[in-house]
Amino acid sequence: MRTSQFPLNTLKETPSDAEIISHKLMIRAGMIRKLASGLYAWLPLGLRVLRKVENVVREEMNRAGALEVAMPMVQPAELWQESGRWEQYGPELTRLRDRHEREFCLGPTHEEIITDLARNELKSYKQLPVNYYQIQPKFRDEIRPRFGVMRAREFIMKDAYSFHADEESLQLTYDAMYTAYSTIFTRLGLGFRPVLADTGSIGGSHSHEFHVLADSGEDAIAFSDSSDYAANIEQAEAPALTGPTETEAELTLVDTPNRHSIEEVGAFLKSAPERILKTLLVAGKEGGVVALLLRGDHALNVIKTEKLGVAATPLRFAGEQEVRDAAGCVSGSLGPIGLKTPVLVDRSAAALVNFVCGANQDGKHYTGVNWGRDLPQPGADAIVDIRNVVDGDPSPDGRGRLRIARGIEVGHIFQLGAKYSEAMNATVLNEQGKSQTMMMGCYGIGVSRVVAAAIEQNHDDKGIIWPGALAPFQVALVPINMQASERLQQATEQLYADLTAAGLDVLLDDRKARPGVMFADMELIGIPHRLVISDKGLDEGILEYKGRRDADSKTIAISEAPGFLRRACGN
Amino acid sequence: MRTSQFPLNTLKETPSDAEIISHKLMIRAGMIRKLASGLYAWLPLGLRVLRKVENVVREEMNRAGALEVAMPMVQPAELWQESGRWEQYGPELTRLRDRHEREFCLGPTHEEIITDLARNELKSYKQLPVNYYQIQPKFRDEIRPRFGVMRAREFIMKDAYSFHADEESLQLTYDAMYTAYSTIFTRLGLGFRPVLADTGSIGGSHSHEFHVLADSGEDAIAFSDSSDYAANIEQAEAPALTGPTETEAELTLVDTPNRHSIEEVGAFLKSAPERILKTLLVAGKEGGVVALLLRGDHALNVIKTEKLGVAATPLRFAGEQEVRDAAGCVSGSLGPIGLKTPVLVDRSAAALVNFVCGANQDGKHYTGVNWGRDLPQPGADAIVDIRNVVDGDPSPDGRGRLRIARGIEVGHIFQLGAKYSEAMNATVLNEQGKSQTMMMGCYGIGVSRVVAAAIEQNHDDKGIIWPGALAPFQVALVPINMQASERLQQATEQLYADLTAAGLDVLLDDRKARPGVMFADMELIGIPHRLVISDKGLDEGILEYKGRRDADSKTIAISEAPGFLRRACGN
Repeated sequence: MRTSQFPLNTLKETPSDAEIISHKLMIRAGMIRKLASGLYAWLPLGLRVLRKVENVVREEMNRAGALEVAMPMVQPAELWQESGRWEQYGPELTRLRDRHEREFCLGPTHEEIITDLARNELKSYKQLPVNYYQIQPKFRDEIRPRFGVMRAREFIMKDAYSFHADEESLQLTYDAMYTAYSTIFTRLGLGFRPVLADTGSIGGSHSHEFHVLADSGEDAIAFSDSSDYAANIEQAEAPALTGPTETEAELTLVDTPNRHSIEEVGAFLKSAPERILKTLLVAGKEGGVVALLLRGDHALNVIKTEKLGVAATPLRFAGEQEVRDAAGCVSGSLGPIGLKTPVLVDRSAAALVNFVCGANQDGKHYTGVNWGRDLPQPGADAIVDIRNVVDGDPSPDGRGRLRIARGIEVGHIFQLGAKYSEAMNATVLNEQGKSQTMMMGCYGIGVSRVVAAAIEQNHDDKGIIWPGALAPFQVALVPINMQASERLQQATEQLYADLTAAGLDVLLDDRKARPGVMFADMELIGIPHRLVISDKGLDEGILEYKGRRDADSKTIAISEAPGFLRRACGN
Repeated sequence: MRTSQFPLNTLKETPSDAEIISHKLMIRAGMIRKLASGLYAWLPLGLRVLRKVENVVREEMNRAGALEVAMPMVQPAELWQESGRWEQYGPELTRLRDRHEREFCLGPTHEEIITDLARNELKSYKQLPVNYYQIQPKFRDEIRPRFGVMRAREFIMKDAYSFHADEESLQLTYDAMYTAYSTIFTRLGLGFRPVLADTGSIGGSHSHEFHVLADSGEDAIAFSDSSDYAANIEQAEAPALTGPTETEAELTLVDTPNRHSIEEVGAFLKSAPERILKTLLVAGKEGGVVALLLRGDHALNVIKTEKLGVAATPLRFAGEQEVRDAAGCVSGSLGPIGLKTPVLVDRSAAALVNFVCGANQDGKHYTGVNWGRDLPQPGADAIVDIRNVVDGDPSPDGRGRLRIARGIEVGHIFQLGAKYSEAMNATVLNEQGKSQTMMMGCYGIGVSRVVAAAIEQNHDDKGIIWPGALAPFQVALVPINMQASERLQQATEQLYADLTAAGLDVLLDDRKARPGVMFADMELIGIPHRLVISDKGLDEGILEYKGRRDADSKTIAISEAPGFLRRACGN
């Protein structure tokens, strides 16, 4: 391809509304353009990259035996009413009426549609398992669309849904999808990690997220430095950390005037945060309030807490008046001694000795507090995991220590079980000729998000650095001042023909532009390999080659260019 | 592929709501399933065919220098308000509100979006011409979705939009698209015809439709038996047919009791329809009524009549009372003698002599009527083309006679001119550095409709007969009772491997099913080439081959099968 026939739409200036690097670079490189909040058009350069992702995803889904289908984006309300989600789904679900006032929605996902299809097509256990997938636009009316295509309202998703006679079969397909996803992200050249995930509102039992690792990632991931263990921080199990072995100190009531936070109290009492007990009051599930006790250096994990079924869902912290009614003080002086509310104690907080906690009197704390002596030893039921893991925690699988990384979720696989098939009566006849509800799995990849995530992981101050499998072109061929030299024109055309004949995907920059402009554009749009051909080089039969990550260029013989680049591109 | 891994979803029964053969066969073959009125899911078999169409369209669009983009399906109201179509477009345009109550619509077409994109990206005449295209779902809320994917509400369309500095450039791209479309439908193996078309409400000057010829087509096409001339019947110019050379007969008022239609009057008076003048009263553009005069054997062409700007648009026939007020009789006795309304006379009606017409008295007609003597010779302005051409009319290009065929519109190319670019201020700087409105063309192909149209053209009582380029698989390999013979299993696997290695796309029917069931399915889904392998054939080293259109099968040597089929498939 030539820039004269494939015009670049690069921009010098960074768009003012772009907050993250991938959004900035995708706009500047001319990959996407914003049409409205969360709605983007893909320009030719961006679409080439998107199609590369699509193709790898399609190949691996096919290889894993999944069958491609295409379901409508506009979905009838009746099916969502059957599953119960028409009422449950919030304003992210865009509802509309057709000319006959019938209700529809724009598909944010297709569980209802595929379950309807499956219950009509699948009659016998002999037809199972089957795994249907599609790659197509989805619409979710995000309350705050941002970060370009990273969190857009209309986006491209690969969604797959499998149907099974039993859990064993579901597990097999789930494992096959886990493998296929690993292959997909490996083939795309991305640093990624599959992590245990919360199944959230979509329901079901087992779930893994696939994260592209990037410092700018929205999600925190905990992984072992010595094993395969990895989990979303929402999910990672926190161990009980043991406290120091000390003789019991004396319980003392101390003044802590105007000291409310752990940091303030710790600084005032010269006590480390891990020696202070943090007391949080939240609304209880059955009304009233519940106290949550953690070590001062640990953060509450909302998801884990909600799952215990003791606090109200969604979790809500008690207001000032509720705190005073329950404890008689401001929240900065809360503590468990004498508190009458139900109590949940984080495992590590339960192991503290000689600790500091609020005294339930304004401006006062206790020091030298000990479980059993100063307040009741919590029962086994009350000792729970309600904190986020932190860097250095022992790994839950007993191997190594946890490290924390940032990730961008690009894939998610679920075992849905019978959630949808039961609600929608999707059954088959089993071997005994009896009707039996099918088991389901679902498997998503944010195809358009993968493009942005790849950039978050692979860029420098000059622009994008595409992994080979994602690059819109493999090689940039830049002639210097070609318009002034017929010899150079001919040599450039010949080289372009030779490279193309060698199976390389080349972008020839045949614009009448200054070399600096051409170099900057090719770096901005992230072409992995650059060849510079010039009149001067022709005299010696050489070219300048520079890999996108290389600090310096090097010289190669023109005649060797096709072979050299085939090797460099791994073709 | 094997039917064990690519399950067929064929049905024996024809769905009750399917009216046309392509709809029936697509359901029965398991290509599509209805989700709701005008909304279809594509099953794996159907999607394979759809993708074949997409790929040919994409290749030829790329070859013609068009650039692929992807625009959102959800479009902001503001752009449609700018073009003026937010108000103009009827209920086919599905409007919706997002969670912030902002208005959007589901894209039925993308002129507004691409014009907005172009006015932002294109600044100079040097960037022109450019032709952007996309292949993606569109939504049009048809009042009566029917015929399966032939007239669905959500459907797949290829839409392209070109931008130009002048009309000459627009004409060049228009011609290139005309050629590309001809190549696309030729490559798809379809009998088609490009025809001159009315530009309709989308506006602009030049336009061609591409029709797949099929007896079931909704549109009538007129084409010359001796030249390239072809036009939609709405558009085809009707020549003036000369009447017989006769001496003038006597004007006579005759009773025609209870005879109203041309047929009734003709039978009663023993006069051929082409000797009777048909008088129609329609609402005038400026109020009142207008008389339209045609030969009794000719049909009114509404589009042509509306374009003359004399009658009200849309055309409306006068009611009973309006007819009596204007002529003093029922419409079955209408005639031009003494009529005080404005009159439009079709060219062929103006050439009549000694004709019959209504007498504007209930139950009476005149015979022996002649222009000039019995009623004023119509002026040149009043002699117009307002009829449909009929089989046998002279071709408007002066070469040969017109024939009428039925067609299914699958493509449409338009010269839009400045309709959208002017309304939306899409300008570039010209060579003189002055701002200049761009010219536009637009080019559509109904990708999903092509699939249905291909079936309308290619089927028999057993099912679909795919042209090679559209077939979901090229070859069906059917082993007879394979499960009972290990030798046959091995030979079948070997043949499958050999055919696949020869680059053929083979569907191996490895179901444990009766031969008749397998044959019927392979014929229903339209696989062009069928090989039957059996234990008996193995003894002699032979196979049975049958082309989908062949009456009888023939015998070929197993060893020659790959070469034979490569030739048969044109690989």
